[in-house]
Amino acid sequence: MSDVVTGRPAKIAVMGSGSWGTAFALVLSDAGNDVTLWARRPELAAAINAEHRNPDYFPSVELPPALRAVSDPDEAMVDAEFVVLGVPSQSLRTNLSHWPIPRDAVVVSLAKGIELGTGLRMSEVVAQAGGIEADRIAVVTGPNLAREIAERQPSASVVASTAEETAAALQRVCHTPRFRAYTNTDVIGCELGGATKNVIALAVGMAVGLGFGANATASVITRGLAEISRLGQALGADPYTFSGLAGLGDLVATCSSPLSRNRTFGEELGRGRSVAEISASTRQVAEGVKSCASIQALAATHGVEMPIVENVAAVIAGELTPAGLMTTLMSRSAKPERY
Amino acid sequence: MSDVVTGRPAKIAVMGSGSWGTAFALVLSDAGNDVTLWARRPELAAAINAEHRNPDYFPSVELPPALRAVSDPDEAMVDAEFVVLGVPSQSLRTNLSHWPIPRDAVVVSLAKGIELGTGLRMSEVVAQAGGIEADRIAVVTGPNLAREIAERQPSASVVASTAEETAAALQRVCHTPRFRAYTNTDVIGCELGGATKNVIALAVGMAVGLGFGANATASVITRGLAEISRLGQALGADPYTFSGLAGLGDLVATCSSPLSRNRTFGEELGRGRSVAEISASTRQVAEGVKSCASIQALAATHGVEMPIVENVAAVIAGELTPAGLMTTLMSRSAKPERY
Repeated sequence: MSDVVTGRPAKIAVMGSGSWGTAFALVLSDAGNDVTLWARRPELAAAINAEHRNPDYFPSVELPPALRAVSDPDEAMVDAEFVVLGVPSQSLRTNLSHWPIPRDAVVVSLAKGIELGTGLRMSEVVAQAGGIEADRIAVVTGPNLAREIAERQPSASVVASTAEETAAALQRVCHTPRFRAYTNTDVIGCELGGATKNVIALAVGMAVGLGFGANATASVITRGLAEISRLGQALGADPYTFSGLAGLGDLVATCSSPLSRNRTFGEELGRGRSVAEISASTRQVAEGVKSCASIQALAATHGVEMPIVENVAAVIAGELTPAGLMTTLMSRSAKPERY
Repeated sequence: MSDVVTGRPAKIAVMGSGSWGTAFALVLSDAGNDVTLWARRPELAAAINAEHRNPDYFPSVELPPALRAVSDPDEAMVDAEFVVLGVPSQSLRTNLSHWPIPRDAVVVSLAKGIELGTGLRMSEVVAQAGGIEADRIAVVTGPNLAREIAERQPSASVVASTAEETAAALQRVCHTPRFRAYTNTDVIGCELGGATKNVIALAVGMAVGLGFGANATASVITRGLAEISRLGQALGADPYTFSGLAGLGDLVATCSSPLSRNRTFGEELGRGRSVAEISASTRQVAEGVKSCASIQALAATHGVEMPIVENVAAVIAGELTPAGLMTTLMSRSAKPERY
């Protein structure tokens, strides 16, 4: 990683050309690095190279001409100093088992989720399935709606690694005047914030879809962050992380933007559509729909009360209506706020 | 207060028929109390009594028929067990000097602000100017946009008093199925959260007016809450309060709703209008415009760094543009988030 430390451009592979993979590849390329973007479908890689835009996600955004797309993972990763994983959380393990990650590369997880079945965070999946040591793993999180980043709007972000020098190395290669990265060594807190906020965003979306206003949604966000923090503390996270960009910041961005897939999915639920109907009509995955059961299981294992996650999981499972969820959340009996 | 303790309706005077005074009077009346609403202008009192609505603020909301309006403050307050102060923060002291508050009444402050010149919180102004003992003073705060409450949307709120029994008494008289009140004894934290959030909402409004998206506004909200918490801790507040409904909840509601006066005022600034132009065209006061200088002074006195408040105060004073504010906030140098 000597190139990185001295501030020279790094060779970086971004594996996955969905919305966040594409947007982060754009940031890394804008920052002056030599970036290769891997697309599963050869025709998408060809389109990106020919048109310098990603027709599937950001047809109107001009990608840096130097950003090159390939559909062969080996070609993408050869000599990479950083391998950025931009595939969905539930596909990460399978992909890692096939990919020849260079042995000294820093491996960066963009996915926000908890693996179904194992209850593992994404960095744990990377370590286990990819055989990567913890001090080579980093995660990117924070209030980072991909479309806004692709449009080069100003954003602040968090790059976390248990090894401070790994976080700092990633920070150096992704920092641009429009994308401000802050380092953090609390990987547990950063990943939990990113994974659980999707479930809270589903609840906020349901409130919006049911016609409730900012008083109700702000209450759900507040109580949501409280339950995320409780889970985090039980798992050994630094409580401060949840007050920062990776906790509160990410939660608020996701819950307040109509661009958020999870909030939008929740809104559709609130308007009376079923999980199956909404899933059938959208290309993009709403992570919270998949993660809520794993987060609920994790909370149960650690004896943490998470009423919002629990109620969202019940709605997703078809056992509760969105209106029933809001009634349950808003009608708890009068008591002191801290109890 | 024996009536209250036993759960019987209380006699309550709500002093001020602006948006929040009217909405909270509606809640108290819906909760079954005997509520008198004081309006400064006799014609407004007459209109409320004749039409059971407040034509100035909520022309389409039906007020409870039992809610009676008067324009004589003495008549409003006679035998009142609770006197609710719903006048603007900077008029509170003058009003209190004229009003015959019954000597055993609980005095409830609805105003969110810091007094210019003295730097006092509203409950301190009530104590000083009204000669009221701290254990008879309560404040109401939280994510409570007045219009939504008037429309009887579900809302959660915080009632705070240094005396737990006073907070509990107020909780009992204002709790309805649509309005859930939680008690808190950290009056300092609750009032600071309510006063400072208006200034952060001005900054968020500016970002929106300049065309920035959810990533930027969520970052301003996150860093705003951090500086509110720093000030609160310097003043002896419980840090937990800022993670709850009176801190985060109120901040998020104010910053995310187009109904918020402060956010709207900031948006107009972001679009290039001047403070004078916007003030001339709106009836309602944006508290943050008045409070930012007092909060900045309070922070300076206690040696607390509040970059957002400082930059907002500079914009209000005409010394900085909204674009300059955003550049300053988003372009601080790369560093760990917690420093």
